Amino acid sequence: MVQRSEYERAQSEALKYLERAGIVLIPEEARRIEVADFGLGELRSTGMEVVTYVNTERVCAKELVLFPRQTCPEHYHPPLGSRPGKEETFRCRWGEAYLYVPGDPTPNPKGIPPRGREHAYTIWHEIVLKPGEQYTLAPGTLHWFQSGDQGAIVSEFSTTSYDDSDVWTDKEIKRLPTVEE
Amino acid sequence: MVQRSEYERAQSEALKYLERAGIVLIPEEARRIEVADFGLGELRSTGMEVVTYVNTERVCAKELVLFPRQTCPEHYHPPLGSRPGKEETFRCRWGEAYLYVPGDPTPNPKGIPPRGREHAYTIWHEIVLKPGEQYTLAPGTLHWFQSGDQGAIVSEFSTTSYDDSDVWTDKEIKRLPTVEE
Repeated sequence: MVQRSEYERAQSEALKYLERAGIVLIPEEARRIEVADFGLGELRSTGMEVVTYVNTERVCAKELVLFPRQTCPEHYHPPLGSRPGKEETFRCRWGEAYLYVPGDPTPNPKGIPPRGREHAYTIWHEIVLKPGEQYTLAPGTLHWFQSGDQGAIVSEFSTTSYDDSDVWTDKEIKRLPTVEE
Repeated sequence: MVQRSEYERAQSEALKYLERAGIVLIPEEARRIEVADFGLGELRSTGMEVVTYVNTERVCAKELVLFPRQTCPEHYHPPLGSRPGKEETFRCRWGEAYLYVPGDPTPNPKGIPPRGREHAYTIWHEIVLKPGEQYTLAPGTLHWFQSGDQGAIVSEFSTTSYDDSDVWTDKEIKRLPTVEE
């Protein structure tokens, strides 16, 4: 649950990050920046700001804004009917992001799980993404990511997003945002 | 056919456009910027510079750089086997672009077909794309586009690119570039 005032503050802050990175939104896009707190009410640690450019039956493209050390928690995208799970490419545009996928745990990883949620972060193979660097996740791959101390902007190029079917390691998470008026 | 020296000059110029727009490439991407003259040998009028970020079996994302008044000529993406044609979203990031699709011809359109190639430009319904503006083409839609006097950078979010199957109105066009050493 995000308070309306906090939601709007996060939108306007995300817009400043985008502007600083030279990414232009039209006013209607700026008004519908999605502020996702994943139902935990700890937006600044577990959360993400999302601009969805397009999401058709085949293709999706988004800009993800992460405030400093903000985390998109561990999850995967399951198959839906005859469709394989969502395929995603994350491309860092600004700042720095740490992406975690299955594999050998990286010693001394840069990411820090949100306090009190450590149990819901189980994979530690680290991919560091600096501007211009990207990584493609095969469908069904468990993953989570966090920005560095300056925050990050990450472009996501993917197949269709069906956010409400995502599977989260942390069972308290609800992906679709609710706003308290 | 593009001369090697012209190819490299266009790459380095395209990189400057991207830098000016705040779009960061890693060095390996900068080296493989594709300079497409569509086989006509008139790169500055009929041509395009392309950075392909990802092109999997499902998703493709590119940055298209257009020098001032450079034109991507009229074409469509046909179905391939059981797959519908390529679906494309064009999002203007910098500069200004004019996209033409089937429909009522726009009076006094801003686009100017490359000289001597006017016969190969048959559709004149105009969509002006300024930074932050975008347009999604349904599979199989005939289209062409040109940048304004300052050039343009356009992001393309699409299904898989199979460039060699594209159908061009101008039968002299060859999409895949050849470079003369």
